[in-house]
Amino acid sequence: MVAIAAQLTAEAYPKVQRNQDFKVLNDEDLKYFHSFLNDDEIIEANGDDLVTYNQDWMNKYRGQSNLVLLPKSTEKVSKIMKYCNEQKLAVVPQGGNTDLVGASVPVFDEIILSLRQMNKVRDFDPVSGAFKCDAGVVMKDAHQFLRDNDHIFPLDLPSRNACQVGGVVSTNAGGLNLLRYGSLHGNVLGLEVVLPNGEIISNIDALRKDNTGYDLKQLFIGAEGTIGVITGVSILAAPKPKALNNTFIGLESFDIVQDLFVKAKKELSEILSAFEFMDNGSIKCTIEYLKDEPFLLKKEHPFYVLIETSGSNQDHDQEKLSAFIKSALEEKLISESHMAANIDEYNKIWTWRKSVPPACNSYGGMYKYDMSLKLKDLYSVSDAVTKRLNAAGLIGDAPKPIVASVGYGHVGDGNIHLNIAVREFTKEIEGLLEPFVYEYIQSKKGSISAEHGIGFHKHGHLHYSRSEIEIRFMKEIKKHYDPNAILNPYKYV
Amino acid sequence: MVAIAAQLTAEAYPKVQRNQDFKVLNDEDLKYFHSFLNDDEIIEANGDDLVTYNQDWMNKYRGQSNLVLLPKSTEKVSKIMKYCNEQKLAVVPQGGNTDLVGASVPVFDEIILSLRQMNKVRDFDPVSGAFKCDAGVVMKDAHQFLRDNDHIFPLDLPSRNACQVGGVVSTNAGGLNLLRYGSLHGNVLGLEVVLPNGEIISNIDALRKDNTGYDLKQLFIGAEGTIGVITGVSILAAPKPKALNNTFIGLESFDIVQDLFVKAKKELSEILSAFEFMDNGSIKCTIEYLKDEPFLLKKEHPFYVLIETSGSNQDHDQEKLSAFIKSALEEKLISESHMAANIDEYNKIWTWRKSVPPACNSYGGMYKYDMSLKLKDLYSVSDAVTKRLNAAGLIGDAPKPIVASVGYGHVGDGNIHLNIAVREFTKEIEGLLEPFVYEYIQSKKGSISAEHGIGFHKHGHLHYSRSEIEIRFMKEIKKHYDPNAILNPYKYV
Repeated sequence: MVAIAAQLTAEAYPKVQRNQDFKVLNDEDLKYFHSFLNDDEIIEANGDDLVTYNQDWMNKYRGQSNLVLLPKSTEKVSKIMKYCNEQKLAVVPQGGNTDLVGASVPVFDEIILSLRQMNKVRDFDPVSGAFKCDAGVVMKDAHQFLRDNDHIFPLDLPSRNACQVGGVVSTNAGGLNLLRYGSLHGNVLGLEVVLPNGEIISNIDALRKDNTGYDLKQLFIGAEGTIGVITGVSILAAPKPKALNNTFIGLESFDIVQDLFVKAKKELSEILSAFEFMDNGSIKCTIEYLKDEPFLLKKEHPFYVLIETSGSNQDHDQEKLSAFIKSALEEKLISESHMAANIDEYNKIWTWRKSVPPACNSYGGMYKYDMSLKLKDLYSVSDAVTKRLNAAGLIGDAPKPIVASVGYGHVGDGNIHLNIAVREFTKEIEGLLEPFVYEYIQSKKGSISAEHGIGFHKHGHLHYSRSEIEIRFMKEIKKHYDPNAILNPYKYV
Repeated sequence: MVAIAAQLTAEAYPKVQRNQDFKVLNDEDLKYFHSFLNDDEIIEANGDDLVTYNQDWMNKYRGQSNLVLLPKSTEKVSKIMKYCNEQKLAVVPQGGNTDLVGASVPVFDEIILSLRQMNKVRDFDPVSGAFKCDAGVVMKDAHQFLRDNDHIFPLDLPSRNACQVGGVVSTNAGGLNLLRYGSLHGNVLGLEVVLPNGEIISNIDALRKDNTGYDLKQLFIGAEGTIGVITGVSILAAPKPKALNNTFIGLESFDIVQDLFVKAKKELSEILSAFEFMDNGSIKCTIEYLKDEPFLLKKEHPFYVLIETSGSNQDHDQEKLSAFIKSALEEKLISESHMAANIDEYNKIWTWRKSVPPACNSYGGMYKYDMSLKLKDLYSVSDAVTKRLNAAGLIGDAPKPIVASVGYGHVGDGNIHLNIAVREFTKEIEGLLEPFVYEYIQSKKGSISAEHGIGFHKHGHLHYSRSEIEIRFMKEIKKHYDPNAILNPYKYV
């Protein structure tokens, strides 16, 4: 059960109208679903509260679906889709419902197709590292299974306890170790997908290398369930690293953050597995949030960087990282650093990075943006936004509405997260932020969505990052795969 | 100039008929091309010999094109495509013309669109590693440029002196270091593509992470120029490794090859950059071929493995590799090994692996297959083929037609190359090989083309590795992008 009830999306966004081509669910439809689904595969709204399925975890969007289907097999997903397509019943595929852009909940009365009961590991080949599972396997379970088999899932997210493998692939999630293990477009070996018309298209048995025709699976990676429902995933697991080290560093400018990144790529090279940065404001909020926790460094700095290495030999890795820090201090690139001496300290250092989002959220709420930019421009968007909000006199102690506007993220991937921590949401702040942020990103040829996706939040905003012809192509793809437009409507392209 | 003239494809494969919907090139067309292309951007067959463009480098396929266009800009490529599409003139895009499946030469009178005069590096960002260039940049030049900038191109091929970056992406080439740097689906950041109708679709400025809609570039990677002409590529370069080590190992069975691979992934982990195997037959041919070169090992073995490591610290890497070899000897996994003591020896060890194909080809010619299989099945296809050819009494000293049937390849990627070294090509051998090889691969759920692609050679064979619905989807994609079917006809899907 979600504690806070979000406003109905239909009421919060009255301009978005229900597509009248879609049929309204009736008793006959329910009868059909009951004809091949067991009782534990159907949840109806009569009596049951569907709010955990209808509402996103930011409590920002809330749909009004009266039906959740939780089939336990691909064949059943296929039967559901075939029927919905014929009947023009709209459908939202749902994984762990942890997305940040309103992609996985209905907008109106769409049927929710939850994958959470398809949660079996199908196969693991320790020789090749190919891991095959149902879409609904929770990421932490995939991690655990692979860890028990001396491997790791090639991706990690803060939402690992709830997000599902199929959802991760559907949203092309990035996460903390993309720098080391690469993107899902390289790691996903094969997919099993149910198309809107119920057909099952599968290359889940695919091998590491396969050049027999167009790579059909690629379009489904990051499609947010708009052209097919991913029911199975085959992904390349990496050998479990034997050594993990990290260090927390204070730096004086974003230019130096970049110089340090170049140096790290050169000197730590194959063992560099994360290079995360946080600005002073991020850490100030986090110090308040983690109030009982002593801060890692002695002094305050304009910027902080967390460097993680992972490799196969603890002595070698520690030697490399120590030599790197020593020479960075000598070159006066960095002012201060704290290196983990053991696994507890390693986890503690990560806590400072991972606590930035909840710290920003702890004052009441936050406006949240997720962008890619060239590294030289990466922090400038945060600077520009802070300046703009400051000029309007909105940042400061209460009763000013904004606590802080901060930037942090994955330097290694050119990905910045911008959090505007607020005491309350106001139309004035929103008006200052949008479209300003998007226009700024557009002017720098950046991406308005680095890893969070499009969903309902950024639907209609693609033109800030994509050309007219690209958007036309996307619309053609959508139309080609889903001619009745029943899959995850009112979102994406 | 190519020394040996291949038989015309049209004569060798009389069942393949010219598509009569295609217009035959006339003087008006030539006049149009001359109106915006300079003299050095057009080669006509009147007097000039176009054989180097019409014939593939295996001297197996030969088209009859009378026109080669070599535009120097994307806009000119666009103008050419727009016109050809309107006029229904068929076109073959051509890069370095080094492919192994007859994909880059015309079958009949298609216009050859060579990218070789679009050969400029566009941009390099040493901070992010993003390297941007024209499609026609030769791979060795890309390697050289990046090496000069302390980086490496994330892919290497034996054909690096001739193949072009655009062609490499069009064919989704794999090569020697995929194990370490991953596939092009993960490394290509963006593409500039001219569509059949002349429209230019580009996300070449794309960043490391970008989740704004379907990943349109992916379908062009490995499409062999059938749905668009790649004119520009942005790719993620890796930092240049400071240490390179390798070792050549003798082993007693393919089971042990697999065990050693698992051990190498675990113990060499992040520095493991190649794990190549060769069977006894491969090395026997190579010993004859490199006759003045003393063999690396003292004894003969059923299998050989080449392991390469690349990393940032020579001492660390050497220590890891030595410890690995020592324990593999102690565990009696391996019988004998030879480690490179310096860069000359490093190159010499690679010579033995890279000489296998020319060695097999040196007796007259060879039948060549390229397949992916689960590791446990990888060598079985070579065993099965050798047994079959032996049973027919075809392998042995002259006058028997077959010198040897050998297997070698990239264990790390599950990719085996099968070479049947022959003194002459005969219908009997061909009949024993096909469809036997494809049916065998199909029975093991493998791929009939791991990295060489489809082209003319495997056109019509997709059903051995792909389902009916996948092939239907591919045909729909082709039809959607290229409704007049003018791009690279008679090939692929």
